[in-house]
Amino acid sequence: MFEQITIIGPGLLGASLAMKSQEAALSQRLVIGARRAQTRDTCMAQSWCDAAFCEPEAAVSESDLIVICTPIGSIVPLLKQIAPAIKPGAFVIDVGSTKRAICEAAEQISKQRFTFIGAHPMAGSEKSGLAYARPDLYEAAACILTPTEQTPEHALETIKSFWETIGTHVHVMDPESHDQTVAAISHLPHLLASALSANLGQQDSTWNQLSGPGLRDTTRIAAGDPTLWQQILLENKGPLLKALAGFENSLAEFKAALQSTDAKVIQDLLKKGKAFRDLLNHD
Amino acid sequence: MFEQITIIGPGLLGASLAMKSQEAALSQRLVIGARRAQTRDTCMAQSWCDAAFCEPEAAVSESDLIVICTPIGSIVPLLKQIAPAIKPGAFVIDVGSTKRAICEAAEQISKQRFTFIGAHPMAGSEKSGLAYARPDLYEAAACILTPTEQTPEHALETIKSFWETIGTHVHVMDPESHDQTVAAISHLPHLLASALSANLGQQDSTWNQLSGPGLRDTTRIAAGDPTLWQQILLENKGPLLKALAGFENSLAEFKAALQSTDAKVIQDLLKKGKAFRDLLNHD
Repeated sequence: MFEQITIIGPGLLGASLAMKSQEAALSQRLVIGARRAQTRDTCMAQSWCDAAFCEPEAAVSESDLIVICTPIGSIVPLLKQIAPAIKPGAFVIDVGSTKRAICEAAEQISKQRFTFIGAHPMAGSEKSGLAYARPDLYEAAACILTPTEQTPEHALETIKSFWETIGTHVHVMDPESHDQTVAAISHLPHLLASALSANLGQQDSTWNQLSGPGLRDTTRIAAGDPTLWQQILLENKGPLLKALAGFENSLAEFKAALQSTDAKVIQDLLKKGKAFRDLLNHD
Repeated sequence: MFEQITIIGPGLLGASLAMKSQEAALSQRLVIGARRAQTRDTCMAQSWCDAAFCEPEAAVSESDLIVICTPIGSIVPLLKQIAPAIKPGAFVIDVGSTKRAICEAAEQISKQRFTFIGAHPMAGSEKSGLAYARPDLYEAAACILTPTEQTPEHALETIKSFWETIGTHVHVMDPESHDQTVAAISHLPHLLASALSANLGQQDSTWNQLSGPGLRDTTRIAAGDPTLWQQILLENKGPLLKALAGFENSLAEFKAALQSTDAKVIQDLLKKGKAFRDLLNHD
């Protein structure tokens, strides 16, 4: 599909993508960009890595697909840095959790000399790093692509086909809709899991010994990297606050029904919650 | 350990307990009490079931350990019904999610002719019913026992030993402390998962196609039985509202930090959440 793919930032998402790209023969060569020498050495020892560069410009200059897999705070600065080195007509995608600001900046930077399309695969784990990477991380996951009015149709088709070969179900929406949607289905759940976990910890840290599978699952994502998530939550602050306000309304309904011992309303809310949860793809 | 154990209500918890009791040779005979003929037939076809009765009095009359595994709303009425049929000196335990009201009523009912000790194994699933039962459901789970001042020491030791043989880690606390603790670590997480799930469903039911593993885990328990959970949440209303108020404070801190773009406070809250989550037993 491509002659050479570059993956910058071979963490959980980046290295899993590299593994799957090789497995699916998506390119003839796969090149890594990574600042740390140890990461480059680890990559070079893998069958999927043909070359590893410290300087991102060197990593991207020969590639026709570049995937930026760094934390969202560094995507735009990195794109500015590599832009002059990118081959004309190349494709650049990212895997960041927010899209509006990144896509806006990317269009300013690319000036249509190369094509940037925002991508957000809904895969991952609270565990980060190359050590946890696996080729099936993306299998059956949703992947949201966020083209803009300037995105050429053929470019979208190419990138769509790339993510489908990786194993994801591709959904297309504009960057703003993406940010509002993931505020509700990803960033809000993270904020709630973290708030619950922080609250329990400050009350009684021995409660960890009593927890059942329910609490473990409900709070699992709170174990994610605080630095990464602080960036995501703040970058998507506006839509997240809106999603939070909606949740607070539902919580207030629940609270009022408890206070007035209204079994019917409580059961209705539980039923509505179950109805939505039962729709989610099976684990 | 016992000559005969009776399990009333062979659902997920009851049937799993029956399986493990047989595996660990905890009694010579195991008897089931179940209202529905189909459930009794299913049980009788299992190697662990020696007899199955429709009438709970008949199921308990010859047993030296009786385990009530029915939904919490029916525990006290059932106990009243079977009390006259229970052998003097027998042990009665339950597996209900709340303890104060049940233990108070049980002492009134038993009049020390038999010994009731409240038990709450922190095991289970959003899936209910005999079909999902498995002998290792309780393996390494916490089990909270709630004796009162009237509980004889030897009785507590016997029941503790029973639950340890089942595979749980036993914790002992008074019924009131139990209810406050599980309000925070089990009932509040359930309420939040349900409120989030209900809120997302009423906004856009197609979001289910975009969800990642984070949302699936965070909301998993919202798929639980609404009737069971309505009973639990209302029965533990007081402690639950208190736990909810604590959570709302943590949520308000998060919200204020987002509104004022205070990266440091957000990162601190995320770190606190991660610190508690990292303490939880590994999945």
